[in-house]
Amino acid sequence: MSDAVVSPAVAEDEAALATPFVKCLVRLVRAHDSHGSWEGKSDAELLADFIITKEQRRAIPIIGDPDPDVLWRLEIFYAAVGLAIEERSGLMASPMMEVSHEGFGRVLFTAGRLVVLSKTLRDVHRFGFETFWKLAAAGTQLAGDAITAIAAHPEVARA
Amino acid sequence: MSDAVVSPAVAEDEAALATPFVKCLVRLVRAHDSHGSWEGKSDAELLADFIITKEQRRAIPIIGDPDPDVLWRLEIFYAAVGLAIEERSGLMASPMMEVSHEGFGRVLFTAGRLVVLSKTLRDVHRFGFETFWKLAAAGTQLAGDAITAIAAHPEVARA
Repeated sequence: MSDAVVSPAVAEDEAALATPFVKCLVRLVRAHDSHGSWEGKSDAELLADFIITKEQRRAIPIIGDPDPDVLWRLEIFYAAVGLAIEERSGLMASPMMEVSHEGFGRVLFTAGRLVVLSKTLRDVHRFGFETFWKLAAAGTQLAGDAITAIAAHPEVARA
Repeated sequence: MSDAVVSPAVAEDEAALATPFVKCLVRLVRAHDSHGSWEGKSDAELLADFIITKEQRRAIPIIGDPDPDVLWRLEIFYAAVGLAIEERSGLMASPMMEVSHEGFGRVLFTAGRLVVLSKTLRDVHRFGFETFWKLAAAGTQLAGDAITAIAAHPEVARA
């Protein structure tokens, strides 16, 4: 619209939002919008709650059960990882997640007889990313690790 | 003590209680007896609640959350499966379990990168076995399936 200079942070956000992983995440979040109330929102607005600054992070108490909204974001983040794995490998990766009241847990993705991804969860109360770029990088890395595991043991993943 | 004839049912119970799987289960149940209050109990008494007749089974309502005692028995049963797998393979098989409020769920055991056992859970509200023999057979079969999977993909189980 204008010839204003785009700041590096904005450019980075845009690049992050264009990654296949973040597109998976946006698709899943929009799929939960059964009443169409988020239709007018941009992708960045839709994912805004995934972003927390260091200061915000420190301010979140880790006493008591993790907030249901945080658990929802955690689940949808890992569901997006599963979707990204499926897009890249053609294999359904089923997630299983355990989270304790203390905010510790484990997430596991399997395809056939292969554990394609296993990750320990910590500090679930404070789940979030400093920037869109870090969100994109984290999801992309997890999906990439799973793809590497599938490539190493393709016959087990298809068992 | 007497020369009374041992009934076939009693002989079957004794054989069941002597299986490696049931011994694993008894060991785990006794490990939970931190106050020593079950010390005087026989193994059969200790496992009595795992046994439910068809009539008892039908009488258990499947509305509402599964009873915490049932969930405890379900968890310890699968923990015993894990222990039996470890005894026979030398590999630690970590369980993960998901149970919905409707009594459906999934239990997954992994060793290394291998899914050694994956089982859908149904009717968790009514978890139990008609006889000790059926209990022993179910656990032994599950551990055996896992051992077969490990034998088929030993390098993945050790990955």
